[in-house]
Amino acid sequence: MSVESKLADLGLALPQPPQPLGSYTATSEAGDLLFISGQLPLREGRVIFQGRVGEVLTVEQGKQAAELAALNVLAQIRHYLGGFERLDHIVRVEGHVSSAEGYFDQPAVINGASDLFAAVLGEKAGHARSAFSHNQLPANAAVVLVVIAKIRPAQ
Amino acid sequence: MSVESKLADLGLALPQPPQPLGSYTATSEAGDLLFISGQLPLREGRVIFQGRVGEVLTVEQGKQAAELAALNVLAQIRHYLGGFERLDHIVRVEGHVSSAEGYFDQPAVINGASDLFAAVLGEKAGHARSAFSHNQLPANAAVVLVVIAKIRPAQ
Amino acid sequence: MSVESKLADLGLALPQPPQPLGSYTATSEAGDLLFISGQLPLREGRVIFQGRVGEVLTVEQGKQAAELAALNVLAQIRHYLGGFERLDHIVRVEGHVSSAEGYFDQPAVINGASDLFAAVLGEKAGHARSAFSHNQLPANAAVVLVVIAKIRPAQ
Repeated sequence: MSVESKLADLGLALPQPPQPLGSYTATSEAGDLLFISGQLPLREGRVIFQGRVGEVLTVEQGKQAAELAALNVLAQIRHYLGGFERLDHIVRVEGHVSSAEGYFDQPAVINGASDLFAAVLGEKAGHARSAFSHNQLPANAAVVLVVIAKIRPAQ
Repeated sequence: MSVESKLADLGLALPQPPQPLGSYTATSEAGDLLFISGQLPLREGRVIFQGRVGEVLTVEQGKQAAELAALNVLAQIRHYLGGFERLDHIVRVEGHVSSAEGYFDQPAVINGASDLFAAVLGEKAGHARSAFSHNQLPANAAVVLVVIAKIRPAQ
Repeated sequence: MSVESKLADLGLALPQPPQPLGSYTATSEAGDLLFISGQLPLREGRVIFQGRVGEVLTVEQGKQAAELAALNVLAQIRHYLGGFERLDHIVRVEGHVSSAEGYFDQPAVINGASDLFAAVLGEKAGHARSAFSHNQLPANAAVVLVVIAKIRPAQ
């Protein structure tokens, strides 16, 4: 089943891939690696989830923020590769969480991204991961995801 | 002298490599790079060093936390490669330190990891490095290490 | 026009590449990637821009800090490669900004680095990017840049 079919089954659609906000590019290829610029929980140009998890946002909302940021990662990959056939696998996910003082379960929040990748990418989802706490993030986003993917050569 | 012998000489043993805490993998290979999930100062499932360096922990304890996290990095590499023969070198270390307000010497803390790599890996230890301050880290860990290694093809 | 000529046109000169402050190396090569240790807004051994953007430093000063850190990145690349001929392109920039509570425009600060790369490297400047907020950084630096570059084989 295709990635798009799996997304549709889950009632999800990929957003338009966000444009870079400066002199950089959304994706950068090097050998068999694709580096994707930090993705926010953005939809139609607006950061949907703002503020600290454990303060303004519940953990469940934090997970939704991570899922939405992950959808933007997939949108960037599809935009760059023209689909998911050339995606070998997600290599690494760094999940940064805007967190209330004393909130220590950033991995639970970033599971929102990892679980989405597992659900729609199957075997291509496997990734190493790190989670971090910040007292705030750019644009007051709840989550920023930084992803590296392995890609296959164009046929 | 083997890595294991050097560890024994230093009175150190590698811990069991920690399991991932979500839908991700402890290590992810891409070409000649091995990406290792963020490692904490963990022993037998417990985070041994918690809290902020310069507040709850001394700098010396912070260095011990970085050394223990580095032992977990080595445990993950050994687990994935079945030893250290296929390790080419440690490419990059990112060291994240839970820090008291006004504590600015995160590099001194992360030296606990770099010095361990130098002591047990010799020429394979050389790595680029960055150190960061956070006001807290997941599981209230004192240190998180994010490492990329270069590996050699299996014979 | 060479990178050095473009720098001269802009009235800029590359600093001496800073030495590592521990058991690590300024740069680490793996395949066609060059990993550069975190660079600070350093000149002649001194961190020129210290403190939080939006508190001690203006956004304009933050951008200058990012530009100076970017010059140190270029100095490391030149030092390692003996020039810029073997630089394929800047693959990824992670920009960490020491930020006042409630300051959310870290991307504006890191544009100081991205704009410099664009001005002096032209087509080799294109990079994926992520920006982060920290409440402090090592050595009380205003900015830390972590860069990965793609390099070409020596002839």
